[in-house]
Amino acid sequence: MDIVKTIANDLKLIREKRPLVHSITNYVVMNETANATLCIGALPIMAHACEEVEEMVGIASALVLNIGTLEPAWIDAMELAGQKANERGIPVILDPVGAGATKLRTESSKRLLESVKISIVRGNAGEVATLAGIAAEVRGVESIGASATPDEIARQFASTYGCTVAITGPIDTVSDGKRNAAIGNGDVMLSRVVGTGCMSNVVVAAFAAVQPDAFTAAVGGLVAFGAAGELAAQQSGNRPGTFAMELMNGLYALDSAAIEALAKVTVV
Amino acid sequence: MDIVKTIANDLKLIREKRPLVHSITNYVVMNETANATLCIGALPIMAHACEEVEEMVGIASALVLNIGTLEPAWIDAMELAGQKANERGIPVILDPVGAGATKLRTESSKRLLESVKISIVRGNAGEVATLAGIAAEVRGVESIGASATPDEIARQFASTYGCTVAITGPIDTVSDGKRNAAIGNGDVMLSRVVGTGCMSNVVVAAFAAVQPDAFTAAVGGLVAFGAAGELAAQQSGNRPGTFAMELMNGLYALDSAAIEALAKVTVV
Amino acid sequence: MDIVKTIANDLKLIREKRPLVHSITNYVVMNETANATLCIGALPIMAHACEEVEEMVGIASALVLNIGTLEPAWIDAMELAGQKANERGIPVILDPVGAGATKLRTESSKRLLESVKISIVRGNAGEVATLAGIAAEVRGVESIGASATPDEIARQFASTYGCTVAITGPIDTVSDGKRNAAIGNGDVMLSRVVGTGCMSNVVVAAFAAVQPDAFTAAVGGLVAFGAAGELAAQQSGNRPGTFAMELMNGLYALDSAAIEALAKVTVV
Repeated sequence: MDIVKTIANDLKLIREKRPLVHSITNYVVMNETANATLCIGALPIMAHACEEVEEMVGIASALVLNIGTLEPAWIDAMELAGQKANERGIPVILDPVGAGATKLRTESSKRLLESVKISIVRGNAGEVATLAGIAAEVRGVESIGASATPDEIARQFASTYGCTVAITGPIDTVSDGKRNAAIGNGDVMLSRVVGTGCMSNVVVAAFAAVQPDAFTAAVGGLVAFGAAGELAAQQSGNRPGTFAMELMNGLYALDSAAIEALAKVTVV
Repeated sequence: MDIVKTIANDLKLIREKRPLVHSITNYVVMNETANATLCIGALPIMAHACEEVEEMVGIASALVLNIGTLEPAWIDAMELAGQKANERGIPVILDPVGAGATKLRTESSKRLLESVKISIVRGNAGEVATLAGIAAEVRGVESIGASATPDEIARQFASTYGCTVAITGPIDTVSDGKRNAAIGNGDVMLSRVVGTGCMSNVVVAAFAAVQPDAFTAAVGGLVAFGAAGELAAQQSGNRPGTFAMELMNGLYALDSAAIEALAKVTVV
Repeated sequence: MDIVKTIANDLKLIREKRPLVHSITNYVVMNETANATLCIGALPIMAHACEEVEEMVGIASALVLNIGTLEPAWIDAMELAGQKANERGIPVILDPVGAGATKLRTESSKRLLESVKISIVRGNAGEVATLAGIAAEVRGVESIGASATPDEIARQFASTYGCTVAITGPIDTVSDGKRNAAIGNGDVMLSRVVGTGCMSNVVVAAFAAVQPDAFTAAVGGLVAFGAAGELAAQQSGNRPGTFAMELMNGLYALDSAAIEALAKVTVV
């Protein structure tokens, strides 16, 4: 099937099956990512206590690990949850927020990549480059620059770690080491609201919950999220507060017809 | 006095007295519940350190315990805070978020029900059924189904634990074991935004801060919250982002006349 | 240069330089303060683990410490981060949320004032009065009353602690012990949304990142924040949900011309 038709169909599946997406994520975006999960048609759960993460993963259909406001106990919980997800064969999405900005973030990301089989890493160019061993600058959680193109970074990361990687930016880049996709969906307003990368993680996770091919799920999630961003931008002009609200409306309103009309994706 | 007139009057009292509502709640909804507290006319405070919860309870007029992103240290703080609230005779509202989904959540809820005299438990059908010993399915924090009606669950819970219980859903059910209420206020959009149950807790708590009868306070809080949801839905159409914003506007705009015009409550 | 022209110019500098503002703040307002940081033109980072705060401060241009949902480990992190900021000579802004309401909050604020060289303290009248040794009542995080005027409180605080202090209220008061400013910008709607004080901290921090004179930075941040509140109020009427959204739009839309048109500031 054409990848756009597959994405449109996966969106239908998410809304039929309402998969439970378990997020262990940062404090800054918890509400927004839970709402994004609900708006795309999945059910959100946030649970981070080592005492319960494995049991919660036991009923989830996808797991998101996001180190945005990490501390060591949370990384322990992420590891436990990730290993349980591996045992059950459900997809694990990792967002290495701020890798490259501090040693704790870089090392925690590497630790999770080593101890858990990650299906999809979603980050910005600087974060992914850092983990792939490519020189880059990350200021806080912002990618300032890297010594390679997103495409080169994605390919190297995928071949080093053997998983799918999605680098978001003006053009999103997805690679699983064999296939590479460029996604033109999105809007500059997505960079003017905090946590849109984090929200894209849960949309990718919802797709991964219904789509066994990680590459296709990553592409699907980013096309859907970008398209929702475009719908939101039409309603918001240059107003980031309004855009943040309309982004939820856009995720909720998005349907298969909108995916087919808006998708801008090239796979090579 | 007719219960609707009492509710309308209690709303006036909240806005005159501005009671301090202390919440120990989950990370996902902290901002939204604090704003809901403020919009209904009370003052919000969030404090969870064992080192200060008792002192903060010492100046509060109601306490909300919500286990949505629990970990053991937070349950300890909830217990300390709850016992101090009991000592002072202020109402304690418990939301057993996700009871039935994991052992930690079920056991923490039971521990709080045993060690603290709870005035009002507010949850969904699956959570309350689990605690009442009735078979039910809870997926994450979503009630999937239960082997009894909300009305039966509420009656059994109230008689087991000797406190008022409020089960929210398409029709809200409140019972104190002797009186039972069915509340028809609300809108389906309330299920499309994360944390509306959590927000309803603080509205119930604001009512309990001015209304000594827990049953009346629970009914009042849910009528008011549901009515605010109806006002919001009129402004939002099928757009959950817009609805979330309008819900705050609705809580703020709600007045005694709106309560009298909109209340749909039957007490038997 | 006239202070209003300086403020207008500092806003331009923030948008050119995009300084990284590191916040260690409370759970309730993390998203909103991160978005306020971004909307005023700076880059937000939230990091609180003792294992990384010093390294993150190492790349930041200003540091905000906010004790709104404090616990002892977070205060330790604030102290480490603050001392590193001092070592690097970057400004530290402290918000003693709830000082006066509990011993933990009062003592933690004092500890930070003793162990870290704070550039600017931003709080309400009751919190600042408490720390200055002036009798005041703080209910939760709300200032109920104090036995001196904001102007007297600010002068005494500044002379006791030797730093700039900003007391927000209907009229904002800034003092560094020598200069005193009264700022008439703002709107009553700012008191109907949770966390506007916390948001004003990060705007002050963004100004302090580009303006070495702490007094001028504090005045600039509060003029800018108040002016954004006025722009927001024009769009929102008496609707706090709408106002919260428009406040972000206002911070983003604010430019030097708006500062020059709206600034209401007197320095004596």
